[in-house]
Amino acid sequence: MNAMRTLAALCAVLWAAAAFGQSGEPTPPKTLKAAETAIILVDFQANFVHPEGTWYNRFKPVYDKTKMLDRTVELVKAARAKGVWVIHVTEGYSQDYRELDWTNPGAFHRNQILRKAWKVGSKEAAYFDRLQPGPNDRDLFLPPRVQVSGFGGTGLNEILRSKGIRNVAVGGFTTDVCVYATVLSAYDYGYRVYALKEAMTGFYQEMSEEMLKNVYPFWSYVVGNDEWIKMVEPAPQ
Amino acid sequence: MNAMRTLAALCAVLWAAAAFGQSGEPTPPKTLKAAETAIILVDFQANFVHPEGTWYNRFKPVYDKTKMLDRTVELVKAARAKGVWVIHVTEGYSQDYRELDWTNPGAFHRNQILRKAWKVGSKEAAYFDRLQPGPNDRDLFLPPRVQVSGFGGTGLNEILRSKGIRNVAVGGFTTDVCVYATVLSAYDYGYRVYALKEAMTGFYQEMSEEMLKNVYPFWSYVVGNDEWIKMVEPAPQ
Amino acid sequence: MNAMRTLAALCAVLWAAAAFGQSGEPTPPKTLKAAETAIILVDFQANFVHPEGTWYNRFKPVYDKTKMLDRTVELVKAARAKGVWVIHVTEGYSQDYRELDWTNPGAFHRNQILRKAWKVGSKEAAYFDRLQPGPNDRDLFLPPRVQVSGFGGTGLNEILRSKGIRNVAVGGFTTDVCVYATVLSAYDYGYRVYALKEAMTGFYQEMSEEMLKNVYPFWSYVVGNDEWIKMVEPAPQ
Amino acid sequence: MNAMRTLAALCAVLWAAAAFGQSGEPTPPKTLKAAETAIILVDFQANFVHPEGTWYNRFKPVYDKTKMLDRTVELVKAARAKGVWVIHVTEGYSQDYRELDWTNPGAFHRNQILRKAWKVGSKEAAYFDRLQPGPNDRDLFLPPRVQVSGFGGTGLNEILRSKGIRNVAVGGFTTDVCVYATVLSAYDYGYRVYALKEAMTGFYQEMSEEMLKNVYPFWSYVVGNDEWIKMVEPAPQ
Repeated sequence: MNAMRTLAALCAVLWAAAAFGQSGEPTPPKTLKAAETAIILVDFQANFVHPEGTWYNRFKPVYDKTKMLDRTVELVKAARAKGVWVIHVTEGYSQDYRELDWTNPGAFHRNQILRKAWKVGSKEAAYFDRLQPGPNDRDLFLPPRVQVSGFGGTGLNEILRSKGIRNVAVGGFTTDVCVYATVLSAYDYGYRVYALKEAMTGFYQEMSEEMLKNVYPFWSYVVGNDEWIKMVEPAPQ
Repeated sequence: MNAMRTLAALCAVLWAAAAFGQSGEPTPPKTLKAAETAIILVDFQANFVHPEGTWYNRFKPVYDKTKMLDRTVELVKAARAKGVWVIHVTEGYSQDYRELDWTNPGAFHRNQILRKAWKVGSKEAAYFDRLQPGPNDRDLFLPPRVQVSGFGGTGLNEILRSKGIRNVAVGGFTTDVCVYATVLSAYDYGYRVYALKEAMTGFYQEMSEEMLKNVYPFWSYVVGNDEWIKMVEPAPQ
Repeated sequence: MNAMRTLAALCAVLWAAAAFGQSGEPTPPKTLKAAETAIILVDFQANFVHPEGTWYNRFKPVYDKTKMLDRTVELVKAARAKGVWVIHVTEGYSQDYRELDWTNPGAFHRNQILRKAWKVGSKEAAYFDRLQPGPNDRDLFLPPRVQVSGFGGTGLNEILRSKGIRNVAVGGFTTDVCVYATVLSAYDYGYRVYALKEAMTGFYQEMSEEMLKNVYPFWSYVVGNDEWIKMVEPAPQ
Repeated sequence: MNAMRTLAALCAVLWAAAAFGQSGEPTPPKTLKAAETAIILVDFQANFVHPEGTWYNRFKPVYDKTKMLDRTVELVKAARAKGVWVIHVTEGYSQDYRELDWTNPGAFHRNQILRKAWKVGSKEAAYFDRLQPGPNDRDLFLPPRVQVSGFGGTGLNEILRSKGIRNVAVGGFTTDVCVYATVLSAYDYGYRVYALKEAMTGFYQEMSEEMLKNVYPFWSYVVGNDEWIKMVEPAPQ
């Protein structure tokens, strides 16, 4: 009788193993190959990171407390050194916003139009100088986009596929707006996503914390800089 | 002096008019043409709406309090009567989840695999009978999807364009997960989006309230059923 | 007996009318509203249109015979005057082609890499000066793309939707390569497509003629400049 | 002097190596990992492959001469055995074509509407029984699509990414219509594409030959069944 029970248990285990296929169990990978990995930096632009930027003061307490900007710069250097591809996505509009739907009921674009904000080439749209690549870095800068998601209108998805990227780590501005949209669409596009919680900040801080706790884990591994960079196996030289 | 001031004011007005183009000012439309409008109903499936569904009890207090289900059924009937196109999007996976990445660090699909949930044809994935169209309704049912956004993997964006739809109203499950993803991607795809706040509910209620207040208005007009249906101008018969 | 036959015929007609819905019959529109219409100009760049361009001599016999370039310039002016939106899409790569998959078995990108061609900012990628918009034109220039289709990686699809464009007319280079890809994907995205046969030319002339005859009509109305511009109803001023 | 020359030559080599990056030269891979490879079979449906299908007689001479159907069945079996993922994409419309734009000037959908063709569940849309997977095969069947490209409206691109597929081999119906659209968009999406020239046939035979010679090589490696299957390295068991 016991033998029967043991056999039945064994069968159940084997059946489950078969059902779960070669991978045995649905377990996320513990390491990442650098050659299959990119960091997507969302909207590191003067509006957010420069003392004269419109929203700088909103984020300054975070910068002071967590050293988010310094630590992001360090992380990006370490990632480059390991062979991770660094991708910069930015926001930007034409001088007269002709590409936007001025009458859309959503306020996002309308707000920029009314504030005359984020024009391509403007001071407030300038890129964060400390994240600029050196002459030997192969960072990719995508054209400014009008979408929320960093994948919107930039060809990013196609480029990442053609280069064999499966893993994307996402940081930037902001946890509750464009970074979330980028993480969400990355998951929907089939990427393995890493949400760099120390390299992002929220527009609404409390809600951002809730989102990091409740919904980010559905689409990503929410991870600190040090843990993430350790997961990356350097590309062969 | 007064003449000068008047002239200056006039110039300012003209400049603004020129800057804002033909539309004068970025003002959202007050009415919607039914022929250019669709309702997207996200995941009205047994898991959420049937007393035996896994998550039913989580939402029951809302159903009881707001009559969300009854009111959604009414809204959809009214919308059909005005000539709005009703689109049903659902979630669903193959019997062995072969189309999913079992090792993705995001937990969403992994959770369904481990719970053996949302299989196409299963009881829990069955569609809400009270939203089923009658024989003369021209509702569209899209194939079950594996993505978060209702636009993911369904061809919805292409179909809506080919039928001349510019406005989408979104309701369903849940305010903080799939409905939000649908609203966000609809805005990124260039739609005018209406978030039907009374026809949706959150998985995390408090966070959903925060999202409706803080970020939904960026991508949509957050609106009650009665106000929205009044905005719709019936299609010519 | 005759009455019966008449009745049967009538029923058949009514049934067909019902089957075909409100539109009665699947008949393409005879006119286009300018506000819903865009011209997409594909790759009018020095490589093709400038006497020093690599491929200029290949097309010169066509230019001489059909006045394609002159006539395209005229068409675009007429279209602007009617309120049609003019969109310019171009090809272009970074200086070291870092965004391309160098080992792709398809030869298209590889050829450009080996020839060091189409770099952004290079003489050969320069835009055709005679199609440049005047100060009051609201033409849209999209960022250079690496894809074949004019919709690839440019956000064009999203922008066109947000502006309410349903009809696209396509011309440029070449009938059998990028223009065909643009027409094909426009149809797949749900647009009503007009193939401007006099504003395009083929890389392989004979094959292009075959394609215009055999497959273009599946995805588009193949039309001459004069007929097309007559179809466009000017936008209200 | 010789030393100088040697040094110069060495520099040139190093410069080229640097310019071309790690891969040395833009050379396509000679082998494919099965785990990164899928076969996309386009529209193997009764309309084309069954003696009673509308277009069967148009293709019968090809079937007789090249044994295309038999050889495709063999190829698919060999591919499955090596661990290549087999994907079936099909065409199909609702019973009243409500999802189509009846007034599109492109004739493709209109033709199906007028012929009442390709309805989901109809005899003519039935799948080719000889390509049906066995109980242990993990083939993927996608929902019927209304687009030309096999990537259209099916979520195929997202699924392939999530499963780590970089290489796609494409065969089916027809070389000059849907197969071409699939190959073209696969290249634009960043895949490495293999055009299975013996597993496809053209609607217009001569034009298809021209396309295989002139434009297919831009987007793919045009290859015979035997050569392709030899390129595939079996997946580890």
